[in-house]
Amino acid sequence: MRIALDAMGGDHGPAPNVRGAARALAASPDLVVTLVGDRDQLDPLVAAENLPPDRLTVVHSAHVVGMTEKPVEAFRQKPDNSIAQSWKLVATKQVDGLVSAGNTGAVVAGGVFSRRYLKLVQKPGIAALMPTAKGRTVILDVGANVYPKPSHLLQYGVMGAACARVMLGVAEPTIGLMNVGEEEGKGHDLAHQTYELFRNAPLNGKFVGNVEGRDIHRGTCDVIVTDGFVGNVILKQAEGLFEFAVQLFGRDVIGALSAERDLGKQALGKLVAKFHHSAAGGAPLLGVDGVCIICHGASDEQSIANALGVAAQNVRAGLNASIEAGLAALGMGD
Amino acid sequence: MRIALDAMGGDHGPAPNVRGAARALAASPDLVVTLVGDRDQLDPLVAAENLPPDRLTVVHSAHVVGMTEKPVEAFRQKPDNSIAQSWKLVATKQVDGLVSAGNTGAVVAGGVFSRRYLKLVQKPGIAALMPTAKGRTVILDVGANVYPKPSHLLQYGVMGAACARVMLGVAEPTIGLMNVGEEEGKGHDLAHQTYELFRNAPLNGKFVGNVEGRDIHRGTCDVIVTDGFVGNVILKQAEGLFEFAVQLFGRDVIGALSAERDLGKQALGKLVAKFHHSAAGGAPLLGVDGVCIICHGASDEQSIANALGVAAQNVRAGLNASIEAGLAALGMGD
Repeated sequence: MRIALDAMGGDHGPAPNVRGAARALAASPDLVVTLVGDRDQLDPLVAAENLPPDRLTVVHSAHVVGMTEKPVEAFRQKPDNSIAQSWKLVATKQVDGLVSAGNTGAVVAGGVFSRRYLKLVQKPGIAALMPTAKGRTVILDVGANVYPKPSHLLQYGVMGAACARVMLGVAEPTIGLMNVGEEEGKGHDLAHQTYELFRNAPLNGKFVGNVEGRDIHRGTCDVIVTDGFVGNVILKQAEGLFEFAVQLFGRDVIGALSAERDLGKQALGKLVAKFHHSAAGGAPLLGVDGVCIICHGASDEQSIANALGVAAQNVRAGLNASIEAGLAALGMGD
Repeated sequence: MRIALDAMGGDHGPAPNVRGAARALAASPDLVVTLVGDRDQLDPLVAAENLPPDRLTVVHSAHVVGMTEKPVEAFRQKPDNSIAQSWKLVATKQVDGLVSAGNTGAVVAGGVFSRRYLKLVQKPGIAALMPTAKGRTVILDVGANVYPKPSHLLQYGVMGAACARVMLGVAEPTIGLMNVGEEEGKGHDLAHQTYELFRNAPLNGKFVGNVEGRDIHRGTCDVIVTDGFVGNVILKQAEGLFEFAVQLFGRDVIGALSAERDLGKQALGKLVAKFHHSAAGGAPLLGVDGVCIICHGASDEQSIANALGVAAQNVRAGLNASIEAGLAALGMGD
């Protein structure tokens, strides 16, 4: 499994990327990593890790897209940036996929500009694997597509189901449509039209209809589709609310203990680590020819290592073949 | 303060409504309640509570709108329903406001049909008061308006600020626009156009720009405006995620304790009670002439009592005068 890593991506520069690559190489014997970025910065970091040269190479790129830069302008002004160069390695089949903790918009734009979509895909989407009371739920799109057509959302359902099969091991994933109420006819035109498309699609009864915000973390269904605006708010609200809940529990519950306070703190610490974004392994951009994992900007080396592991596993397990088969079965035509 | 209570509203029928009214009457000496609903069901419940007849009356209505009925059809087929009759009492100034745990869409529709908007209001919106690390944040709209214009969202900002002043005691509330990134230019057309309107409005620097999902529970600003689709998902996701977090903490943290497990359970129970929807006191529908508080369908008697208290307090504190003054200061014209 050959994965390119945008070694300049993220809030903390190249160091966590290089160290994350080292961890991932140690964990997966069939993994080969190409670090993409500024060779002057990367070489000393790589040398310090003492990595096998046949499994880790550096491809130089001169530019870095800033975390808050506008993607289209950045790509025009800095054509030799590490995200664009990573996508080039994907497009020329020198690697099977890429991982980046860089500017999310730029990673998506790079994939869209490459125009190497999987067969039948109308628009790529970013999926997030959200923790729930029953395991994890795939939610998409969480930010690639703020103007989806109903047919995009139908395709996201199928792409998300492939994700749930390959990444979560769910044999027959159920799909729900995010809405403001469960009853048919709720919500806006996009929701109504998407509901109709799903209802009439050959999905073997796997469409469960509308779901609401409170269903997300209950694990009501395996896949939830929504537009990229709503999905992005959902993803970030979960992060903020979990952080708030941990504060509250720490203060009001752990704070109420005396002899076992340290025991409680340890258990809370473990729980937080389990749900920290590092554990999630990043969000897959689905619909492009090649695996792409987008990481949180704040990713540490373990987050990067996990994302590389997830990217390799998605290649190994044939995620994209599963997406193509699912889309072909919809019979929407080319 | 004269408040009408839709005594048939909610998942549990009239009993929690009547008992909630009794609690509210005991708590607020200046409160007068009109129960609206089926007299045959209400009279025995009222008799059992031994309430002061000068402070509690029953107005009969023959019909009930079901919790999942379509509002417009329900209003046509059941004109004598308890929600419509409650609004009639508001419109004829027999009461100062109403409280309902009934079908939210029907309560909003009743307010819209009444056409008794406050001066300058283009469209009513539902506000939710969400708990944050710093106190509470007013989010609107959470479900009345899934197709807002930018000018509606600007008005929601001003209406939400009045809410934060009157209900949360914030002297100079800050206002943020829900978006998918902090930088100007993020998101969809509605977000761009609304951002421009806010930026140019005479708000004395109280507009803080775009906020993201993770800002909601951090308490980044006092008021967050968004469309009714996104707001509804936010409100319900918070409920579901908090429920999930409590499960996790109970299992993994409280479960890890031994001697102090009961102490931990008690503290967790207190925390849950504090953030339970009963404590919130319902969501105000803003922009109509009269106070309107919409309660969760699952409301128990304490929730209803709290909502009646909040409604009375909003009348007392002049919430609507504050909204009208805020809208007039925008200078948008009639």
